[in-house]
Amino acid sequence: MTMNKVAIIGVGHTKFGRLQEKGLLDLLSEASLDAIEESNTKEKNFDSVYVGCMGSDAFNHISGVASALVDRINLIPAAADQIKNGPASGGSAIKAGFQAIASGMDDLVLVVGGEKMTHIRTPGLITSYVATITHHQAERQHGVSIPSLSGMLMRNYIERYNAKFEWFSDIVIKNHKNGALNQYAHFQKTIEDFMKSSIQKGRGNWENVYDFLSDEISNPIISDPIRLFNSCPISDGAAAVVLCNADIAKKYCDTPILISGIGQATDTHILYERDDLVTLKALRICSDKAYKMAKKTPKDIDVCEVHDAFTILEVIQSEDLGFFKKGEGAKAAHEGITEIDGKIPINPSGGLKARGHPLGATGIAQVVELVWQLRGEAGKRQVDGAESGITCNFGGFGNNIISILVERT
Amino acid sequence: MTMNKVAIIGVGHTKFGRLQEKGLLDLLSEASLDAIEESNTKEKNFDSVYVGCMGSDAFNHISGVASALVDRINLIPAAADQIKNGPASGGSAIKAGFQAIASGMDDLVLVVGGEKMTHIRTPGLITSYVATITHHQAERQHGVSIPSLSGMLMRNYIERYNAKFEWFSDIVIKNHKNGALNQYAHFQKTIEDFMKSSIQKGRGNWENVYDFLSDEISNPIISDPIRLFNSCPISDGAAAVVLCNADIAKKYCDTPILISGIGQATDTHILYERDDLVTLKALRICSDKAYKMAKKTPKDIDVCEVHDAFTILEVIQSEDLGFFKKGEGAKAAHEGITEIDGKIPINPSGGLKARGHPLGATGIAQVVELVWQLRGEAGKRQVDGAESGITCNFGGFGNNIISILVERT
Repeated sequence: MTMNKVAIIGVGHTKFGRLQEKGLLDLLSEASLDAIEESNTKEKNFDSVYVGCMGSDAFNHISGVASALVDRINLIPAAADQIKNGPASGGSAIKAGFQAIASGMDDLVLVVGGEKMTHIRTPGLITSYVATITHHQAERQHGVSIPSLSGMLMRNYIERYNAKFEWFSDIVIKNHKNGALNQYAHFQKTIEDFMKSSIQKGRGNWENVYDFLSDEISNPIISDPIRLFNSCPISDGAAAVVLCNADIAKKYCDTPILISGIGQATDTHILYERDDLVTLKALRICSDKAYKMAKKTPKDIDVCEVHDAFTILEVIQSEDLGFFKKGEGAKAAHEGITEIDGKIPINPSGGLKARGHPLGATGIAQVVELVWQLRGEAGKRQVDGAESGITCNFGGFGNNIISILVERT
Repeated sequence: MTMNKVAIIGVGHTKFGRLQEKGLLDLLSEASLDAIEESNTKEKNFDSVYVGCMGSDAFNHISGVASALVDRINLIPAAADQIKNGPASGGSAIKAGFQAIASGMDDLVLVVGGEKMTHIRTPGLITSYVATITHHQAERQHGVSIPSLSGMLMRNYIERYNAKFEWFSDIVIKNHKNGALNQYAHFQKTIEDFMKSSIQKGRGNWENVYDFLSDEISNPIISDPIRLFNSCPISDGAAAVVLCNADIAKKYCDTPILISGIGQATDTHILYERDDLVTLKALRICSDKAYKMAKKTPKDIDVCEVHDAFTILEVIQSEDLGFFKKGEGAKAAHEGITEIDGKIPINPSGGLKARGHPLGATGIAQVVELVWQLRGEAGKRQVDGAESGITCNFGGFGNNIISILVERT
């Protein structure tokens, strides 16, 4: 049999950031209702709802978030499930919705992801909770956290490939520049903006942004060599997509975007058991699946959204998605190849760095950005003539990764 | 298009109970490996793994339980996601696995559900956590819990339909009788056994089991009129099924069992907004979907597993699954119709009452019991010539329900 094709017919995206006045269900509802409204399905019957959310139990004391949402936004009796795959919960939720339609079980599905975290006053509690995705005996109980593992990867990469810290700064500068053009981003400021503001506040004086990003005052070390600006923020936010059987997509909208490839793969839980510290085998396998399913190669891709929770992850992912040879990703970014007008634009949205990282929302926000790019609706951050895009949504610490490939129909 | 048919080719089931020496991943691994071994797929490549688990964050401090499991049982690079739908997480996980194969994305899928709770010394903390599935503002913050809502339903049912407390005792007696025949059950004792043991310990003297179950010493009130023996225990345990494309099922085993119907539906989150307090509209909708998909009616069903977290729920579910008219379920049980040798045997496994209720495991354990029944492997609790069975897995407090219909091929 051939599987049903699946199209995205509407998207929603709340502002990401420190949204004091909104709760988890407020955010999920807002993104969902925007996506439903945009897809012209308001009066239609949804078959099911998938909610990508990592920390609703720990952060929000809601253990039935999907059931609560369908009630809140009046989609009863639609089926409703929460999909949990750490920071890749959003990507996994899209895959679940995709399979519901591809199988023929469902025709119309809402997928929404979100997280509400900034009400937790001690950021260490969040870092500590997220660190429970690592291996308990081999990693977690020795004090490992996601920033510390990322620092180890960055150190290893820099030493092995003779990369410069400044090349990583170029990625930070790029992502903040892109984020400044994204009205939904957590940070809508360039690094120049941050620097000027720090100078005005009398915190120091810097010749240029590279100096600013190398200074222990303006950019303190988090997990050497990772500094503050190499790290994504803790954000609240939600994003949503409405999926339908592609055969009927044009009934709802003029510009359906096809999900033509999806892959997901796992790797060893313990980092030291991996074949290579700075190669994401799970990403190689899952993106290969997505490319094959869509009958595409990395050369066919016009725009890409990766999971830069830390700058080093953008570099490694850009390589394992097939855009650059191993060890050449950081330099390529330094050379401008991943800029919006570069050969392969990466994170035009601003990425996790600037758009922010409300865990369960991220995998869906990545796809929403690609939808805007492929529809030509990305405004000042538009990638000219983009016809296909791919994502990397990073779960665990690289041990459970999802790639989603979307195309103009 | 027609969807791929999905068969169960292997099952696994740990002992349920107070399993002091085992952790969550131990239990999930044990059930998974048993199911894999039984399905003769040991050397084969699994495409994905779905883990139904409600409380891994709250109870076990593991936020990436699916990724951890595939590593532990060596199924890398299989995709892995955790499915959360409260006490119906197991049923939802089976649905996710079903759709993965039905869509053609996957050929071979492991679905496992489990929970590890008894290490939490204060049962009230567990009740309190589970109560977060209710509506926060309208229910939870006023002190509502699942036992209290169930008590309200039982009171309402008894008054409205002039039902007798003893009819509910008949269900308790039946489920403990069945559980005594199930080597995996949490409680493998009949009510007579409990009574004799209490008499031996000098706690009292009772003429018969009905007296024993009406006594405030031997059967204290939990949430009037619900007493201790009307409530399921807090249990540890896991259950698993291996699913594959039915076209290739006979390659692996001689007696594949077909999943011929699945339905899931939601209802209002707040109980007082429902059309009728003792009617589970979500169950009516989802079981109707399952029946239609399988081209069956309640009359075609030979055996049934329902979600008797409290005895009243078995009664209401047996009605809304279509076996009895509204208000007649308790009496039917009293008349023996739901006994193993009755017209429609319900909970031959012992149900949540006696088999136990490790939240995320339950929806899968229900299906495992039906598989044993349809294969003719249920031993002393075998329902003669059973060819088809249905489940009710109850999520939220009745606001997110799943029915799974299985058949001999």
